Amino acid sequence: MNLKIIRTIIGWILLFEAAFLLFPVSVGLFYHEYRVCLIYTGVALCCFLPGFVCIRKKNEIMVGQIYIREGFAAVSLSWIVLSAFGALPFVLTGEIPNFIDAMFETVSGFTTTGASIVSDVEALSRTSLFWRCFTHWIGGMGIFVFIMAVLPMLGSRSLNLIRAESPGPSVGKFLPKLQESSLLLYAIYIGLTMIGFICYLSSGMTPYEAATMIFGTVGTGGFGIYNDSIASFTPLQQNLMTVFMILSGVNYSVYFCILSGNLRQVFSYEEVRYYLLIILASILFISHNIYHMIGSFGTAVRHAAFQVASIITTSGFSTVDFDLWPEMSRNILVILMIIGACAGSTGGGFKVSRVLILVKSIGKEIQSIIHPQRIKKLYLDKVSLEEETIRSTSAYAAIYSIILLASCLLIAVDNLDFTTNFTAVLATLNNIGPGLSLVGPTHTFDVYSYFSKCVLIFDMLAGRLELFPVLILFSPACWRKY
Amino acid sequence: MNLKIIRTIIGWILLFEAAFLLFPVSVGLFYHEYRVCLIYTGVALCCFLPGFVCIRKKNEIMVGQIYIREGFAAVSLSWIVLSAFGALPFVLTGEIPNFIDAMFETVSGFTTTGASIVSDVEALSRTSLFWRCFTHWIGGMGIFVFIMAVLPMLGSRSLNLIRAESPGPSVGKFLPKLQESSLLLYAIYIGLTMIGFICYLSSGMTPYEAATMIFGTVGTGGFGIYNDSIASFTPLQQNLMTVFMILSGVNYSVYFCILSGNLRQVFSYEEVRYYLLIILASILFISHNIYHMIGSFGTAVRHAAFQVASIITTSGFSTVDFDLWPEMSRNILVILMIIGACAGSTGGGFKVSRVLILVKSIGKEIQSIIHPQRIKKLYLDKVSLEEETIRSTSAYAAIYSIILLASCLLIAVDNLDFTTNFTAVLATLNNIGPGLSLVGPTHTFDVYSYFSKCVLIFDMLAGRLELFPVLILFSPACWRKY
Repeated sequence: MNLKIIRTIIGWILLFEAAFLLFPVSVGLFYHEYRVCLIYTGVALCCFLPGFVCIRKKNEIMVGQIYIREGFAAVSLSWIVLSAFGALPFVLTGEIPNFIDAMFETVSGFTTTGASIVSDVEALSRTSLFWRCFTHWIGGMGIFVFIMAVLPMLGSRSLNLIRAESPGPSVGKFLPKLQESSLLLYAIYIGLTMIGFICYLSSGMTPYEAATMIFGTVGTGGFGIYNDSIASFTPLQQNLMTVFMILSGVNYSVYFCILSGNLRQVFSYEEVRYYLLIILASILFISHNIYHMIGSFGTAVRHAAFQVASIITTSGFSTVDFDLWPEMSRNILVILMIIGACAGSTGGGFKVSRVLILVKSIGKEIQSIIHPQRIKKLYLDKVSLEEETIRSTSAYAAIYSIILLASCLLIAVDNLDFTTNFTAVLATLNNIGPGLSLVGPTHTFDVYSYFSKCVLIFDMLAGRLELFPVLILFSPACWRKY
Repeated sequence: MNLKIIRTIIGWILLFEAAFLLFPVSVGLFYHEYRVCLIYTGVALCCFLPGFVCIRKKNEIMVGQIYIREGFAAVSLSWIVLSAFGALPFVLTGEIPNFIDAMFETVSGFTTTGASIVSDVEALSRTSLFWRCFTHWIGGMGIFVFIMAVLPMLGSRSLNLIRAESPGPSVGKFLPKLQESSLLLYAIYIGLTMIGFICYLSSGMTPYEAATMIFGTVGTGGFGIYNDSIASFTPLQQNLMTVFMILSGVNYSVYFCILSGNLRQVFSYEEVRYYLLIILASILFISHNIYHMIGSFGTAVRHAAFQVASIITTSGFSTVDFDLWPEMSRNILVILMIIGACAGSTGGGFKVSRVLILVKSIGKEIQSIIHPQRIKKLYLDKVSLEEETIRSTSAYAAIYSIILLASCLLIAVDNLDFTTNFTAVLATLNNIGPGLSLVGPTHTFDVYSYFSKCVLIFDMLAGRLELFPVLILFSPACWRKY
């Protein structure tokens, strides 16, 4: 392990965080929250100074090779450092006085989970509310993708950083050069954000509402700015958010195809087809299931669509308390929690493409029983899947299940009921936000002890970085010198 | 698909079932339950006649080759037929008047699940109680292993029948000849039954109690003969049962090694080592966790040991209402429900060896990130694992998860809580018996509708036959003619 490379990378992360913190500062100035502004400026300085010290010997990074293990470890550690510094303003303003609580909230922000320990969010300053939502936007596309886009210094060696951060079983590269790919990804991301912002504005939101809501929508976060999440917005605004959430859960390759005029290929993405199919089927089913509770079919469809989009894209906003829905609908939501969005989107979860790979490997296994002699290849998007991908997807599923069960066991120390614990872990590991029962949409994660919150913080990070980058930190072999 | 072979095999199954039904008949005669006896005799005749018709053209089976698909389909269909005819006495005696309820009870018996819909078991006739427990014993080692042991007609071609029925990722063959292996397996099984019977008798049980209890113990079933399951037995008797349950969850290869004097090899079985380790750790943990509820450490250990043994071996007896235990202990039990017993034992569940294979494949994946160039082989019991086994274990895990979630969704139609549904599916899919909450040890599965009961019947069969044999019945390719 080359620790110097990791130090330099963390240095850059801190510098960028210092820059990001200037956004809430300007919001604070606009709303005359000067005391809070001062604190955010102080924290920005706290990020800048150690960051600057770390990158001083910048030629270090230009020498060594970045192997996968360095890439993975650097990304994991960066996300931890990013969150720790990002939590400081909440502690220093006294809005979330305990550091672990503040860390939970910030990790939840950067990982686009949206699980909160704050019950009265309206009591927070506008600056902090903005920062909370802005972390979704930073974490949504990934901070390393951003760094790659603006800093060409690492060149192709930085592939292993992107690999650790980008969601899905394989890294999609649109363009031969990594920097160009990153730039394009961010361009699409910013484009989607701008379009959403304008749509939200024209639907009657204030600029502040539109900005904070679009951060959560395209980042598939879930932090709201009102205590009732999205319930107080108009039906039109809710429907708009539904559309933008669904769009944000789509594999970004689709947008690349659209931009490059390759419309025919858009429909060839199996993952996206199934993603939309699952959404449609779930909406129809839940609408039918909750119709008797609501009375109007239109309203039922609106709530069902919003909730389905919010859960499958792992955003986690809510327009109603879906914990009160019939068990069938609650169960569909639990299954959507696990499936998650498309690979290569800003959404979390297990990813539709992984589900497809596993289902196809089951089909292959059954075929091999019926025709033991015939060798069957698996295809996704008409491209044959490598054994490597199938094997690593299976290992991913196994470790996902083990972390799920182990986390449930650990947080059971607080003696809450099984539904609460199980969905709390699902909601954090898949970066969704609310679960069911005591962590349902009208509750917060403050019901848990600090120990359990630490477990859930781990789950959020592990879920966002897709397990392996976080896990190798625990492998002694990873820290050994060459 | 060669349907004639399947017909002949089902014919044999019916003949054997007719013979098995004579056991409860003799118990009934002993207890002067003549009306019930008559019904059981009638059902035996109902099995004998169609069975005899089916095997009449017995040369059919000597001609065709039994491919895997025929083997798997024949075994699945046989278990369904076996259960359907086995359910008839309950319906005809009026003790369980509805056929689906009776089918649930019988499938639960043959698959050694032990989940019941009868709340007052003491109201059943002694004949029916005996039959209920005896089905555990028949299903425990597997009816095809029995047929192979006594009927050499199929020779080595019948490997595909045994393969469908025997638990674990690969079929263990102790001896080169299949018939000898089957004979030896049954000899060990009967030996264990006899030793247990004598131990139970000498601990003060009546012969009827000892017989019914040992059927459930060595078959890892879970049907009791009293309403409070095992609570009214003495502590000594409970401890004896704990020991015999743990012994029944051990891979039978261990007993073969002991019999052949190869004691050193006994300790080389990784699976068995981890199985015992998991049991020990769980007992210690739960004892400590429930100590404050019980007051005496000895009693806490006794209950913890009994419950851990009962759940990990997937028996499902209970000495206390463990649904009232702290969430931590309940969670450990849920995890034990999933892990299950050793491969090659009479226990169900996911199997310790499969868990080991998955955990090792995760280690391999992490190693391949740290050292991408190095190729690492996986070993179990010092033997290198074939890619085939790892792949099929992963597919097994995937399909297991999908059936688990799909079943939860389907039975959610009854609108019971998530904990009840989730543990009900776990308890049936892993052939355990009781779950938590509304299907906890003091409740029955009668809370579910007939539709949900059918789903759970499917889960029990799929779990016992390890998914693939049942699943290929749904594949159209399986039914196609050559």
